[in-house]
Amino acid sequence: MTNQNLALRAELIALQDLYISTLDSDRLEAWPDLFVDDCLYQIIPKENVDHGFPAPLILCDNKRMLRDRVISLRHANIFAPVVYRHFFSGLVFEQDGEAIRMECNYLVISTSLEGVSTVYQAGTYRDIVVRIDGELRFKEKHCVFDTSRVQTLLALPI
Amino acid sequence: MTNQNLALRAELIALQDLYISTLDSDRLEAWPDLFVDDCLYQIIPKENVDHGFPAPLILCDNKRMLRDRVISLRHANIFAPVVYRHFFSGLVFEQDGEAIRMECNYLVISTSLEGVSTVYQAGTYRDIVVRIDGELRFKEKHCVFDTSRVQTLLALPI
Amino acid sequence: MTNQNLALRAELIALQDLYISTLDSDRLEAWPDLFVDDCLYQIIPKENVDHGFPAPLILCDNKRMLRDRVISLRHANIFAPVVYRHFFSGLVFEQDGEAIRMECNYLVISTSLEGVSTVYQAGTYRDIVVRIDGELRFKEKHCVFDTSRVQTLLALPI
Repeated sequence: MTNQNLALRAELIALQDLYISTLDSDRLEAWPDLFVDDCLYQIIPKENVDHGFPAPLILCDNKRMLRDRVISLRHANIFAPVVYRHFFSGLVFEQDGEAIRMECNYLVISTSLEGVSTVYQAGTYRDIVVRIDGELRFKEKHCVFDTSRVQTLLALPI
Repeated sequence: MTNQNLALRAELIALQDLYISTLDSDRLEAWPDLFVDDCLYQIIPKENVDHGFPAPLILCDNKRMLRDRVISLRHANIFAPVVYRHFFSGLVFEQDGEAIRMECNYLVISTSLEGVSTVYQAGTYRDIVVRIDGELRFKEKHCVFDTSRVQTLLALPI
Repeated sequence: MTNQNLALRAELIALQDLYISTLDSDRLEAWPDLFVDDCLYQIIPKENVDHGFPAPLILCDNKRMLRDRVISLRHANIFAPVVYRHFFSGLVFEQDGEAIRMECNYLVISTSLEGVSTVYQAGTYRDIVVRIDGELRFKEKHCVFDTSRVQTLLALPI
């Protein structure tokens, strides 16, 4: 692997770290800005992806939909207060023309109002990243989850 | 993000990795040396931080107190043998004059004497890092934990 | 830590990420190629390592044995379908002549066919890495696990 690639790799890890930090520190309003306008964000079971069933739990196909989702989370949705902590590992990537295909494992630990922390969800981020005005942004983010028996309502972004 | 920042980022990650490795490989005597003399280390529930109650579970406000803590762990304290594994993700930082404010998620997996591994604690490290003689060291480390229903005594450092 | 070391560090993290990704994306046939021909791979309880009992659960002492293991996993072994997600953190290393001694924590989350995700195993990778034709490869990989009460058969590589 060339140094050039290691520098890009460091930037991709920084982007994924910023993504996680934005969600877990409850800066949800900043979350859509990590995506390009014409983006795709979905949360979909691994089973569906493996069998070619395109039936996501959640699908947003532009940045405005991500913003709407944050507004409804802040104002409309009723859900039990919960704290998420995201972790990722195993990041690999390849250039695909102007875009970068990136994949890594993720783990979400949730803590309930009662203060009990458990494994909430494990899965894979399958992302397409592009460079806009010098900054890396998500063109596509597919949250492919293994954990189909989800304990609580999927409210906050993964 | 400039290359300059990516280089500093790599150093900060290396520091956090060294911190974790020092604790989990039971090199507790080396743990205080990751801090400056005039340091602050505390373990505090997220609830308290959110509501502005400064009531930490553990507070050490200089390196000598960290050393005393290690000595008492080795000699005085009685607690069930347990193995910790720390993980961190989502590291972000910003320069604040000579200091660096750094934040990341952490997860501690503990394994009991019976060989069962569980989620022990999740939370956020909120750190202030400074450079002393060319090396990055912790000026402040706040372990802000989500998991208020802690299963066993908090004995080892987080 | 010099920039030189940070560059090597970035390469070591990339190797560990590739290792994890190869396993978790079910590209098992590519797994042996991350090792040199004359390699050592073992999965061994921490208890044994601590007490100097060299009794691993699994031991392969060359690359051909790793390949055989993959073939038997694909064709001969019967085991409940399970999905693993590996995570690592706390990576530290030191040069030892031509070789590099590397250590980090690992965590394996497994998801059963019923879609429930749990902590499967936590432990430490203790690796020796060498450079062959410009690429870093594992000369030795010791998966030293804390979790002695393993819920299900250890079938897939750790």
